[in-house]
Amino acid sequence: MTNTLLSLNQATTRGYSLPETIAAASTVGIRHVGLWIEPVEEIGLAATKTLLADAGLSVSSVCRVGFVADKQGAALGAALEATRRAIDLSAELGRPMVTFIAGGLPAGDKDISAAALRVRDALETLVPYATDAGVRLALEPIHPLFASDRSVVTTIDQALELISDLPADAVGVLIDTYATWWDPQVIPAIGRAGEKIAGFQVSDFAVPLPAENMNGRLMMGEGCIDFRPLVMAAQTAGFTGAIEVEIFNDSLWAQPLATIIERTVSTFAEHVA
Amino acid sequence: MTNTLLSLNQATTRGYSLPETIAAASTVGIRHVGLWIEPVEEIGLAATKTLLADAGLSVSSVCRVGFVADKQGAALGAALEATRRAIDLSAELGRPMVTFIAGGLPAGDKDISAAALRVRDALETLVPYATDAGVRLALEPIHPLFASDRSVVTTIDQALELISDLPADAVGVLIDTYATWWDPQVIPAIGRAGEKIAGFQVSDFAVPLPAENMNGRLMMGEGCIDFRPLVMAAQTAGFTGAIEVEIFNDSLWAQPLATIIERTVSTFAEHVA
Repeated sequence: MTNTLLSLNQATTRGYSLPETIAAASTVGIRHVGLWIEPVEEIGLAATKTLLADAGLSVSSVCRVGFVADKQGAALGAALEATRRAIDLSAELGRPMVTFIAGGLPAGDKDISAAALRVRDALETLVPYATDAGVRLALEPIHPLFASDRSVVTTIDQALELISDLPADAVGVLIDTYATWWDPQVIPAIGRAGEKIAGFQVSDFAVPLPAENMNGRLMMGEGCIDFRPLVMAAQTAGFTGAIEVEIFNDSLWAQPLATIIERTVSTFAEHVA
Repeated sequence: MTNTLLSLNQATTRGYSLPETIAAASTVGIRHVGLWIEPVEEIGLAATKTLLADAGLSVSSVCRVGFVADKQGAALGAALEATRRAIDLSAELGRPMVTFIAGGLPAGDKDISAAALRVRDALETLVPYATDAGVRLALEPIHPLFASDRSVVTTIDQALELISDLPADAVGVLIDTYATWWDPQVIPAIGRAGEKIAGFQVSDFAVPLPAENMNGRLMMGEGCIDFRPLVMAAQTAGFTGAIEVEIFNDSLWAQPLATIIERTVSTFAEHVA
């Protein structure tokens, strides 16, 4: 029987449409999905809600917004507005976390500390809107490999420090195993996160990376991550939410949808929970 | 005039022999070199010492040993013995630091905390030999990208914690900008390192990485690292040693030796010190 904590993040089946993914997930007993904004917009919110309701699926995340660390002025305004629209979407889908990626360094600017503070300021700006909607933004530390181009926020402790004075029901952290497994502080940091854990995502790690560095994420068990201690640390800290399988991998995406889903379920059971 | 703190690590001119590198470095006024063990063995210790003396060069490091985190039994014994031979070599070359790389996870073993403790234990075993020789081992945190295959030690704070009860004159840390620039704790961690800073190496960072992930290190100014605050933090913490330029990069290695050296000197002056 499929674990009721398992959520299929749509990135894992990127090559297939949202209706196909929902049908395939539902068939094997998956109970939750993490949704990306673009595929929802493609078929429309009403159709998405109908598909989800018919399949008995809940939504564990709306992915993804942010990328504010390198922006100011109109570009920052547009990124904030996109986040508000994602909050609106979440409010229509049962109020799952909205995943928030920090963003990288501005072109020609090497001040990573200042960039991280801009992420904090952007989140503070968004707090009233998130609070009014009853939706939580989930700041996701990303692997340090991507500190310059995708996320100046790289560790759980750094994320916690940045959001320390923001209300926990409006802004939390998203713990991703691929991003944080190497951190000598990962287990205590998950403990420190406590009620601020807004979400949890799994994929496995190994080197060398493919040419598209972002797409080196592996199915659980194919890499070096010991998942259970990380999951247990989050659950001990109070996290009761779904655990999303989110895998960026060109070889995986080339497989038949049923195969991807079957491997997601079986490797989750074997390695995660 | 070439900065007297600049040291040319031999990895930067990997395609050229030790005599060629020493001659080219000396010609432009470089005062220090970081030596790799294999090229020294190729021409012999006596010839190396003569070349260095004639060129007026001092040695800032002997590279590199360690790789103990994944080993036990005879393999561990051999790694420790190789470290003792590197200490012997250092003792013949003016007692520069011996760079020590933690090593990755054993095949099929995912316990990264246990692996890190094996690094600590190996260093403790080596302390008497290093102390007798008056040589310092320099534990080098490596970029988290390589946590599984090269170094389970990824941050300065983790290295400091591991060596906290070992004598500072026998075991220190090597701070490498490529490895640590992204760390939100890097500046305070360098301060915490204080007298334990055994060495400092520079190269620049950018993504995407080349197919050989290790060889993505760039000449200073070609990436995103703000070097001066890192160098100043080390100097404020008491570090007075040479700053090694160590760059793994296939494109760089394909350039003429004089070009590599000229770029080393000019980018060091522009971006580092």
